[in-house]
Amino acid sequence: MSRPITLFTGQWADLPFEEVARLAGEWGFDGLEIACWGDHLDPQRVVEDDSYLQGKLDILEKHQLSVHAIANHLTGQAVCDDPIDERHRDILSPAVWGDGEPEGVRQRAAEAMKTTARAAARLGVKTVTGFTGSSIWKCVAMFPPASDAMIERGYQDFADRWNPILDVFDEVGVRFALEVHPSEIAYDYWTAKRTLEAIGPRESFGLNFDPSHFIWQDLDPVMFLQDFADKIFHVHVKESVRQLNGRNGRLGSHLPWADPRRGWDFVTAGHGDVNWEPIFRTLNAIGYEGPTSIEWEDAGMDRMVGAPQALRMVRELAAIRPPAAAFDAAFATR
Amino acid sequence: MSRPITLFTGQWADLPFEEVARLAGEWGFDGLEIACWGDHLDPQRVVEDDSYLQGKLDILEKHQLSVHAIANHLTGQAVCDDPIDERHRDILSPAVWGDGEPEGVRQRAAEAMKTTARAAARLGVKTVTGFTGSSIWKCVAMFPPASDAMIERGYQDFADRWNPILDVFDEVGVRFALEVHPSEIAYDYWTAKRTLEAIGPRESFGLNFDPSHFIWQDLDPVMFLQDFADKIFHVHVKESVRQLNGRNGRLGSHLPWADPRRGWDFVTAGHGDVNWEPIFRTLNAIGYEGPTSIEWEDAGMDRMVGAPQALRMVRELAAIRPPAAAFDAAFATR
Amino acid sequence: MSRPITLFTGQWADLPFEEVARLAGEWGFDGLEIACWGDHLDPQRVVEDDSYLQGKLDILEKHQLSVHAIANHLTGQAVCDDPIDERHRDILSPAVWGDGEPEGVRQRAAEAMKTTARAAARLGVKTVTGFTGSSIWKCVAMFPPASDAMIERGYQDFADRWNPILDVFDEVGVRFALEVHPSEIAYDYWTAKRTLEAIGPRESFGLNFDPSHFIWQDLDPVMFLQDFADKIFHVHVKESVRQLNGRNGRLGSHLPWADPRRGWDFVTAGHGDVNWEPIFRTLNAIGYEGPTSIEWEDAGMDRMVGAPQALRMVRELAAIRPPAAAFDAAFATR
Amino acid sequence: MSRPITLFTGQWADLPFEEVARLAGEWGFDGLEIACWGDHLDPQRVVEDDSYLQGKLDILEKHQLSVHAIANHLTGQAVCDDPIDERHRDILSPAVWGDGEPEGVRQRAAEAMKTTARAAARLGVKTVTGFTGSSIWKCVAMFPPASDAMIERGYQDFADRWNPILDVFDEVGVRFALEVHPSEIAYDYWTAKRTLEAIGPRESFGLNFDPSHFIWQDLDPVMFLQDFADKIFHVHVKESVRQLNGRNGRLGSHLPWADPRRGWDFVTAGHGDVNWEPIFRTLNAIGYEGPTSIEWEDAGMDRMVGAPQALRMVRELAAIRPPAAAFDAAFATR
Amino acid sequence: MSRPITLFTGQWADLPFEEVARLAGEWGFDGLEIACWGDHLDPQRVVEDDSYLQGKLDILEKHQLSVHAIANHLTGQAVCDDPIDERHRDILSPAVWGDGEPEGVRQRAAEAMKTTARAAARLGVKTVTGFTGSSIWKCVAMFPPASDAMIERGYQDFADRWNPILDVFDEVGVRFALEVHPSEIAYDYWTAKRTLEAIGPRESFGLNFDPSHFIWQDLDPVMFLQDFADKIFHVHVKESVRQLNGRNGRLGSHLPWADPRRGWDFVTAGHGDVNWEPIFRTLNAIGYEGPTSIEWEDAGMDRMVGAPQALRMVRELAAIRPPAAAFDAAFATR
Amino acid sequence: MSRPITLFTGQWADLPFEEVARLAGEWGFDGLEIACWGDHLDPQRVVEDDSYLQGKLDILEKHQLSVHAIANHLTGQAVCDDPIDERHRDILSPAVWGDGEPEGVRQRAAEAMKTTARAAARLGVKTVTGFTGSSIWKCVAMFPPASDAMIERGYQDFADRWNPILDVFDEVGVRFALEVHPSEIAYDYWTAKRTLEAIGPRESFGLNFDPSHFIWQDLDPVMFLQDFADKIFHVHVKESVRQLNGRNGRLGSHLPWADPRRGWDFVTAGHGDVNWEPIFRTLNAIGYEGPTSIEWEDAGMDRMVGAPQALRMVRELAAIRPPAAAFDAAFATR
Repeated sequence: MSRPITLFTGQWADLPFEEVARLAGEWGFDGLEIACWGDHLDPQRVVEDDSYLQGKLDILEKHQLSVHAIANHLTGQAVCDDPIDERHRDILSPAVWGDGEPEGVRQRAAEAMKTTARAAARLGVKTVTGFTGSSIWKCVAMFPPASDAMIERGYQDFADRWNPILDVFDEVGVRFALEVHPSEIAYDYWTAKRTLEAIGPRESFGLNFDPSHFIWQDLDPVMFLQDFADKIFHVHVKESVRQLNGRNGRLGSHLPWADPRRGWDFVTAGHGDVNWEPIFRTLNAIGYEGPTSIEWEDAGMDRMVGAPQALRMVRELAAIRPPAAAFDAAFATR
Repeated sequence: MSRPITLFTGQWADLPFEEVARLAGEWGFDGLEIACWGDHLDPQRVVEDDSYLQGKLDILEKHQLSVHAIANHLTGQAVCDDPIDERHRDILSPAVWGDGEPEGVRQRAAEAMKTTARAAARLGVKTVTGFTGSSIWKCVAMFPPASDAMIERGYQDFADRWNPILDVFDEVGVRFALEVHPSEIAYDYWTAKRTLEAIGPRESFGLNFDPSHFIWQDLDPVMFLQDFADKIFHVHVKESVRQLNGRNGRLGSHLPWADPRRGWDFVTAGHGDVNWEPIFRTLNAIGYEGPTSIEWEDAGMDRMVGAPQALRMVRELAAIRPPAAAFDAAFATR
Repeated sequence: MSRPITLFTGQWADLPFEEVARLAGEWGFDGLEIACWGDHLDPQRVVEDDSYLQGKLDILEKHQLSVHAIANHLTGQAVCDDPIDERHRDILSPAVWGDGEPEGVRQRAAEAMKTTARAAARLGVKTVTGFTGSSIWKCVAMFPPASDAMIERGYQDFADRWNPILDVFDEVGVRFALEVHPSEIAYDYWTAKRTLEAIGPRESFGLNFDPSHFIWQDLDPVMFLQDFADKIFHVHVKESVRQLNGRNGRLGSHLPWADPRRGWDFVTAGHGDVNWEPIFRTLNAIGYEGPTSIEWEDAGMDRMVGAPQALRMVRELAAIRPPAAAFDAAFATR
Repeated sequence: MSRPITLFTGQWADLPFEEVARLAGEWGFDGLEIACWGDHLDPQRVVEDDSYLQGKLDILEKHQLSVHAIANHLTGQAVCDDPIDERHRDILSPAVWGDGEPEGVRQRAAEAMKTTARAAARLGVKTVTGFTGSSIWKCVAMFPPASDAMIERGYQDFADRWNPILDVFDEVGVRFALEVHPSEIAYDYWTAKRTLEAIGPRESFGLNFDPSHFIWQDLDPVMFLQDFADKIFHVHVKESVRQLNGRNGRLGSHLPWADPRRGWDFVTAGHGDVNWEPIFRTLNAIGYEGPTSIEWEDAGMDRMVGAPQALRMVRELAAIRPPAAAFDAAFATR
Repeated sequence: MSRPITLFTGQWADLPFEEVARLAGEWGFDGLEIACWGDHLDPQRVVEDDSYLQGKLDILEKHQLSVHAIANHLTGQAVCDDPIDERHRDILSPAVWGDGEPEGVRQRAAEAMKTTARAAARLGVKTVTGFTGSSIWKCVAMFPPASDAMIERGYQDFADRWNPILDVFDEVGVRFALEVHPSEIAYDYWTAKRTLEAIGPRESFGLNFDPSHFIWQDLDPVMFLQDFADKIFHVHVKESVRQLNGRNGRLGSHLPWADPRRGWDFVTAGHGDVNWEPIFRTLNAIGYEGPTSIEWEDAGMDRMVGAPQALRMVRELAAIRPPAAAFDAAFATR
Repeated sequence: MSRPITLFTGQWADLPFEEVARLAGEWGFDGLEIACWGDHLDPQRVVEDDSYLQGKLDILEKHQLSVHAIANHLTGQAVCDDPIDERHRDILSPAVWGDGEPEGVRQRAAEAMKTTARAAARLGVKTVTGFTGSSIWKCVAMFPPASDAMIERGYQDFADRWNPILDVFDEVGVRFALEVHPSEIAYDYWTAKRTLEAIGPRESFGLNFDPSHFIWQDLDPVMFLQDFADKIFHVHVKESVRQLNGRNGRLGSHLPWADPRRGWDFVTAGHGDVNWEPIFRTLNAIGYEGPTSIEWEDAGMDRMVGAPQALRMVRELAAIRPPAAAFDAAFATR
């Protein structure tokens, strides 16, 4: 199937996997991008336990859902992060967190990402989406100043920690799609460019395009797609809205989601400032045929309302596909 | 003198203080906002050594310069920061850095800020400008998510560390003006508001208004002045420019200053996106009569060219003062 | 019922009340905001005549409509206006207009507003929406100049005339919601603020939020909701569109509605420049649970087409309500 | 029927006319604007061959379609163009192209336009839409410079070639509606004005309003409708989208349709930057009661999807018609 | 002299005329637009008293100032206004105000305007600038609604009252230039158009162009100049600034000048939102050769600073005049 | 000398060369970009006649002017253009025009460009600026449609005609800088890209950057400089202004320069919409050290006023050069 519409299960991991599969099936999704947390998917068990694997496949089949990618953002985040603190403890599995000593956490996270690649392969899935973490995110905007050397070390640290992981991806024929996202080694256009340079030309490393993070940074999603066309491995349909009024700031003011004092917020796809049609037309133009995966996140709206709404929007956008023959033909006399 | 125009010496601390004083005097500045680094001002010596103090005063007198504020951003930064790392080592005095163990650094920095208050008093200066640092800056935008409790603890940590410092400010009759600035506990409108709530109604705590940090966050400097009118203790005339084009991002992409790929940059006042005239008219309206202190920072321009240019601009703006009598009088018949 | 969707009957008063009720019921409205003109509601008779009152209640019940507010804009307008002229004659009841002597008209209008409060109470309704008029509206923009004293007298006149009226509202436990609107004592953010100061902290006096009047004055409806959150007593869903092209002016050029040379016009909700979703999200955030009352006004569209369209839009917006549990839960491991 | 919604068959002329009529009928169009190319309509045969004419009328009747205009853009283009080259050869009928000698082509095209007028009359149609060509289009923007005299000669050439054609239109009681369009003698507001002056006040010459050409030239469609109200003979519902990002240019870069590097592109009506509602409200205000004819052109979307979508949009817009009575009546007391 | 730069003395009438002339002369103005209030110019005495007239001419000659227009805004305002109240009393001469009975005031004001025409003629001045007042300004934006008949009566009242005045202007060969301005019968583009229709094609009636009133109404000054080119009798160089932030409103909130909460304010020319260069280029294009008269009004700036600043700006703009020969000549080979 | 400021003499060729040199010298220009028309420079004579050459050098020396580039736009234009018509006749030398037969004109123009390269070499100049013409410009925007093959042939025709010319440039060590400009083979970002691909990687072929042509096409000059950094061979300081108001169109409406109805116009540098400071900062960033050549063109302003004004602006911009040492040094403690 070309350009399947999937549901990213990350924001549904408080529900049992089977329940999410049932909902997605009923709403009419084509498939799932399964999150490796909650009870949705444990890569370790996929690798070790055939019956666990079969159980997952059975659920998918029962609800007529395909799977094109699995997601392991939470574990990936810990691979490069510095500092490692309570925020990581709250999202990592006990096995990866262990005693919480930072370097140990990072190394266990790296191993877990290798396992994720192997699990993907066993599931017959070609893409793992996720985060990388970053040792230099804390230098963003901007004091005390970081030296060029420190920035350079940050990219190098990323390459050093991820190249061995990607070797495993290569081995098993799976690709890693980094979600370009604040807090990651690549969070915008130029950091994506430098990240790709840092890791070098590896076929197993590409990007998960998610315009919700571009909108509030004032990045143009279409230019990004055009210029990184051959590295777009996966697409998230997720959205954000700018709420600027001279008082609300771009950086969010440490305020919780859904607080109207934030300068921006995540909202259900179709409710924000992403201009989706040019994005889908550009996906056509660059020949992207992978999943368009709805990542629902909207603290001001119930997901049971928002998710099927977003699906309807993507179905309409998906109908915009170029015709076989050009209309110029209609003018031709010879 | 009302509304003196001063030069902030922070970006000139590689030059000897006397040289900076000579330049400022020649260019026509009214006074200096002296930085507590380089050889410009050592608060410890001001407090301990009368002849050191007199030497500084002599230099100022020689160049006909007044002093209305001293600045200790570098030390203040270490009071709350977490992590404390090489970036701090590079800007702190050896005495404050010591062995670099984070909590020790923070406590020595706090003591040094108390000394700064005492030094200001000895100099006859009513205002210390500076930074506070922040234990929660690293949670900005945005992963892993920070709990509300963690955010709350960040503000509390700030209050716990700064209240004892401010007690000394109260004792000696000096005010601390926090520069609202990314990386600090207050970096925008709402964080400034919450910071003031966290510290409570202390007369010794207020804000250093610097619109260069607001421009790229899309904050309205005039609204800020209006709503925090009674807490504007000091004003920096510093500027930034937005360089957005769909590729350059708001967060700077870890790129060095003066790189045209940055989404924004600092530039000589008068060369960027700050709309100064409404700011100066609002300073009139709210009755601000303190210094307007030129903080020059522009990696693409020589400071020997930029600083006197900025001074000329501020002199012109300073000529915008309301008349004694309203023009309506001209229409009156009785 | 929380957040009922009602139809304001003011623009339908040429039709019999029963006919409007029938239409509203068929279209699916939850209730009515009944106008005190046409045959829709005569406050005097409600107070005096039990069978009249019961007749109205019977009609509402028959069409399964609730009533949460009654509206008396036309009479309220005459309480403070100066001049009083033919425009008032055309909209006032003969009893209030009487001989048309201005001060007499004003006093009879004030008495009629007290009666309106009593009628509301008898109907079991907690809110009366309406206008106040203004003796200083004629000083708007801007010649001959009005003295500060004249402006001050305008606010004082408002307070003097409305405080006795509000005493009756207090007595009967009903609130008056002033529609912030050009021609009224409060027509924008700062006049709303000063109006609230002039009347003092009375529980019975608040605001009817109607963003259609804000759009063409370039006011931000969301900031208004945030800053006057505790005074939002009622909400009109009404809309306007800016039609600016360098020739059309903000002030309307004395041109009739639906003339494309006007700088702005009222249009059916959903057809103009109001950005409704942030308004509804902010209503959620500030905890407003009163009516969202559709005020249809669009000289270029038939109301039989426009009203049900607007209702559909509000139903969709009403579906945006925050979930019981935050999605962060989905990421938690402990 | 007032304001019928028709389908312009120009971009469907690769399909047999009967097939297009069948589709249009099924989708619910009111009628067709029939293109004089493909097998859709041959003016010569209409004039000469009663059975051919009847065959067309039968097809229309069978699918319950009316016809209000016929279109002969391709032939009209050759009347004034200079140079005449392979681009014309590809769109002209062999009879008009002949040996391709430019002046001969122009004269045969002029004769064919007279025949088109006669064919329209025989079909009972009052309007022919089309192009004029231009001998001075090549002088647009801008080197080598054209003299004022050369520009003047261009308008005169247009008048000289079209006045005899329009004499035939007058004779048979048909009007020519020039589509204001780049490449034509009138392509924007001021060239439309000068074109009307050049041709003089002829009742048979007016304009085909098509906002898709205005959007990327930054022209305001509503001002155009207002100022040329009495010359709006026909309306195309066609749309374009601006795709500007600092790299894409207004002039299209010689890139093919649907290439995201173009500065603008044609898209299905409802998918671009035309703000249709003010246009339809202005059509109401100026009393236009002719066809709104959907010209579908979108190289990134299948016409079988796009055309019925556009029809749905126009049906909704068509519901915006002013009511018989003004709502002010609802406020009146006498 | 072509395009003289004059100072409008209206906002200086609290100073003696001789003092204003001295200042204007020293600053380098070419002439004065003399206000008919304060001691600047009393039309009655000009008409009656040769020595008074000569005294004024002597002062002008002494300071090498010409006079091209006299201004009588204050008296003109009372001709049509309704209501007439204390605001008029405060600006009218006691003779015109009399007992303050409205209709008597209006008639005396009309007579005084005839006298002003005669005074202009005696001074050798071709233009009187001023206001007309308006009986329908109070109907602006917008409740209670005014009937079309009432609006029509307002324009008729203007024509009825001003035609006899203009007869005197015709008699003495002087023109009246109405300043298009809120509160007047013409305050924007469409009201200017209708005002000209109401008064009919009289050579003695035209407009005083002042873009400061257009800016905050979002009118395009250049389009106005283009479309009313033959009626531009006089030009004011006056400026305003928009101060919109979502809280400040377009209508000024009844706030005093220089209050930053106003949505707009008058500022010294060169300090606001008027884009002067296209205006001066358009004055060139339409062949306007009358005065450019600086009307200084800025409650936030001293006029002794502002007026000479504005003069410098206009001198620079005045240097933008087309060359005798076109540069195309430079490319010509024959 | 680094970054010399020169005057392009193209728009001054109606004056004798010596007169232009005198003016440029007096105004303080560093040098000239000499146009190969008027009597300014005849390449043929430079090649053939030593005394002619010496005469030119003597004039330059007398006025202390350097020369860094010569310009031959008029001849270059004819190399690829189609059609060749009276517009070319008016700007070509009689020798190149000959009998005006198009192909002959093109070939003589090509030969003349080779001669221009040789003349540049003899003058010691490394750069020839100019135009190429284009056989496909006439296909811009957009009817009748051009086939992809026709576009492809246009680029090929350019390569075929210019490669032999560039061979001569290579031989004599001179570079050709094509001014990216409507009417040329490269007129925007993407056509510049394709032009460079068509000609292949030749060191002798690059671009003359002139932002005046980018502004009205909505191209970002800074992105252009960044992305074509190594091909920026020459820089024109020339400016244009957008004059859009809903009636004026992007394409100029065939109206003459200085007509305010044009959608854009050329104006003296410093008077339009080019944002020069980021351009000069980017020239610093990309290491461009060639001339910044003022091309004055402004039909609404006298060149004797405009040229020295533009020079003053460029001198100020030229003062923006990065300092030797970074200001970060000022914060360092070690």
